[in-house]
Amino acid sequence: MTQTDKVLELIDTDLDKSLDRLFALLRIKSISTDPQYKNDCRAAAEWCAGSLSEIGIESSVRETIGHPMVVGHYRGAGEGAPHALFYGHYDVQPVDPLSLWEREPFDPAVVEVDGEKRIVGRGAEDDKGQLMTFVEAARAWMAVEDKLPINLTVLLEGEEESASPSMIPFLTENRQELKADIALVCDTSMWDRKTAAVTTMLRGLLYEEVFVEAASHDLHSGLFGSAARNPIHVLARILADLHDEDGRVTIPHFYDGVADISRELKAQWKTLNFDEAAFLGGAGLKIPAGEKGYSTLEQVWSRPTAEVNGIVGGYTGDGAKTVIPAKASAKVSFRLVGDQDPGEISKNFHAFVEARMPADCKVTFTNHGGDRAVHQSSDSPWIKKAQQALSDEWGKPAVQIAMGGSIPIVSQFKRILGMDAVMVGFGLEDDRIHSPNEKYNLSSFHGGIRSWARILPAMAE
Amino acid sequence: MTQTDKVLELIDTDLDKSLDRLFALLRIKSISTDPQYKNDCRAAAEWCAGSLSEIGIESSVRETIGHPMVVGHYRGAGEGAPHALFYGHYDVQPVDPLSLWEREPFDPAVVEVDGEKRIVGRGAEDDKGQLMTFVEAARAWMAVEDKLPINLTVLLEGEEESASPSMIPFLTENRQELKADIALVCDTSMWDRKTAAVTTMLRGLLYEEVFVEAASHDLHSGLFGSAARNPIHVLARILADLHDEDGRVTIPHFYDGVADISRELKAQWKTLNFDEAAFLGGAGLKIPAGEKGYSTLEQVWSRPTAEVNGIVGGYTGDGAKTVIPAKASAKVSFRLVGDQDPGEISKNFHAFVEARMPADCKVTFTNHGGDRAVHQSSDSPWIKKAQQALSDEWGKPAVQIAMGGSIPIVSQFKRILGMDAVMVGFGLEDDRIHSPNEKYNLSSFHGGIRSWARILPAMAE
Repeated sequence: MTQTDKVLELIDTDLDKSLDRLFALLRIKSISTDPQYKNDCRAAAEWCAGSLSEIGIESSVRETIGHPMVVGHYRGAGEGAPHALFYGHYDVQPVDPLSLWEREPFDPAVVEVDGEKRIVGRGAEDDKGQLMTFVEAARAWMAVEDKLPINLTVLLEGEEESASPSMIPFLTENRQELKADIALVCDTSMWDRKTAAVTTMLRGLLYEEVFVEAASHDLHSGLFGSAARNPIHVLARILADLHDEDGRVTIPHFYDGVADISRELKAQWKTLNFDEAAFLGGAGLKIPAGEKGYSTLEQVWSRPTAEVNGIVGGYTGDGAKTVIPAKASAKVSFRLVGDQDPGEISKNFHAFVEARMPADCKVTFTNHGGDRAVHQSSDSPWIKKAQQALSDEWGKPAVQIAMGGSIPIVSQFKRILGMDAVMVGFGLEDDRIHSPNEKYNLSSFHGGIRSWARILPAMAE
Repeated sequence: MTQTDKVLELIDTDLDKSLDRLFALLRIKSISTDPQYKNDCRAAAEWCAGSLSEIGIESSVRETIGHPMVVGHYRGAGEGAPHALFYGHYDVQPVDPLSLWEREPFDPAVVEVDGEKRIVGRGAEDDKGQLMTFVEAARAWMAVEDKLPINLTVLLEGEEESASPSMIPFLTENRQELKADIALVCDTSMWDRKTAAVTTMLRGLLYEEVFVEAASHDLHSGLFGSAARNPIHVLARILADLHDEDGRVTIPHFYDGVADISRELKAQWKTLNFDEAAFLGGAGLKIPAGEKGYSTLEQVWSRPTAEVNGIVGGYTGDGAKTVIPAKASAKVSFRLVGDQDPGEISKNFHAFVEARMPADCKVTFTNHGGDRAVHQSSDSPWIKKAQQALSDEWGKPAVQIAMGGSIPIVSQFKRILGMDAVMVGFGLEDDRIHSPNEKYNLSSFHGGIRSWARILPAMAE
């Protein structure tokens, strides 16, 4: 029996104890967006620091301008061993509408649905359940071997659900302390219930807001139409111009730094047998709308986008009002891939809009931030090791997948700490994170702990 | 001394009494949009009916589904005399924001500003001051001659500021009673402080609302962009397509029934010396935005338009939300001229939008109503007579003007009663109707009474 086997055995034996500990954390109402739960957030941080210290990862609660961070260190694997930074977040989303919950969101339980055991409660998956898979794996290693296979820094934040205002300053100030060989991030999903996955690509994001102004005040459309410039018309033309007939973005230099994915990756994605009809059907759609020449999976995983996320101008109440509005505005965001530079695209987008601004119109912009895409080499040794450990645990080859969304912390680790990340998580697409009745399958929790118990020694090999 | 001269003399002598009567009406808080003033609206109707009956125009308050109408009849001019229907409205706009009023809105007074005497108060112009110019002219004729030069029906409504829900049923039910040779409408303006005007053209209106739906619920732009159809993009393209590069509306058959104005009218409008810079400058604009090849005055008086009055879709709050919305909508209105048919244009607009609807999208429409344009022949004898009487009164040739907005009652008189209207009014562009500190120049009120005193006998000639 190997060390790992012993650890896995203990994990199985002690699963109820692991669940008890997860439940203790789930009971803390650490809603980071709502100031009334400020003390609960601190309590969750203290609980996490205590739990980590208890198993030998010396941890403390660290002040920020917002909710505190938890930072822990373990150096017992010795000088030559690899050093990983584990990241998770102890804060959760608000629970409203409360009336849609089938039980109290902060009174977790295991319930059986369709023959499947599910941990239900706010944070069951995102991210308390996920982060506890790692902590419990470390606990089991400590219990069996009194040491971990690798050196470790742990960073748990309490602001992930509220745009992480403290993260960049904290990483910048504590660069030396937090830098490691590799980051381990547990906030992603499996490919399906039976297939574990390492997420290797995330799209980046640039979020802009455009304000077009014409007249000094709203005008009567009888008295002034069509002599007065209508900013909704101006905005509509600009937004209509954003894409060509093939669904490609027309902003100059937009595709600089965008490469097609490798033939190998394309072939690998093909083996995933992505169910396009089910994916679109879940949203009430049938036909992929995006860039011609790319499959739906390629579109959402590997192609950049320009999407209008919101638009408003003029009268939007009930009935009719004959107004030519003084202004109109739109929120436009871009999903980025490859080496696309949010700064350059912001500049080129502004120029694109300004070039379309007629006389008598003024345009202003607000930049709501952005981050580059994450694209990790599919043959990074860290990823290969994690992938192998996952395949061993789940009895089926683990796959490399991408995610159309963004995880800002991963870009920040790269930009500020110069550190890549291995993204492993055990979420399922029906976990209802951010929604009422959030759940985490017991198989995800149990399999997640076992997975990390295998990944830790694999990293040291 | 002619009869008319005697009437004019009495008007001058009794101006203070006329003002007292106007003030009595102005003190009644007949705000038609606000249910708490329901009884005030009825009180204003009763005051008007009493005032008309007192001078020999037998009037009564008539019930409707909303605020009552006032209808009065006078047949004393005899069988052969012309028969006019006078229209005005006794209801007024709400007064908010009250804090911007320099005195109580329902405590009228004459104040002197820049050497000009002004009647201030809600309704001072729109439309109590205007309708009282007519009533006081009739009163003076009755006082001097004990008869009016023409037969008369009076129709005063109490819902003009709240979309006149009772008017069409009332006109339809009382068609025989209300039909006359010509309507006289006092709800328009002079060309400037010294130049009286007959308004002979009004643009019509068609008001549509378009709803575009794609996904069954809002989607995450990371997970679904660009594979999911974005209804804001769809809508923006349609709205951008509405106009060509020359500012012409591109809906098929839109210009059916639109003719350029006659050379004579064009020449006459030129003599008005319209101050384009002042007109646009008042709105903070410099350059006319509309249809190429037409002056600003032609654009707003004689050309049809398509204007987006409102648009909304997706996230419109503060900051950033990465959503692909399930739906987006826009309010689109059309100003109509000549013989443009609102029904046909509605049909063609729907077809225009439907033709641009991609797969997976659904479009629905709400029609918020419409009316044809009013375009009266510039050599109608009624108009010529009124114009001459106005020229005599103001010592300067009165002009024929147009209005870019719509006055639905004028279209309804034409459609339901088959009756043209002579639109004469004494408003000035700085009267601040619908706004705080509404006023009516004393010269408008006094000159208005004198004008009607001349128009009445002119009609009989």
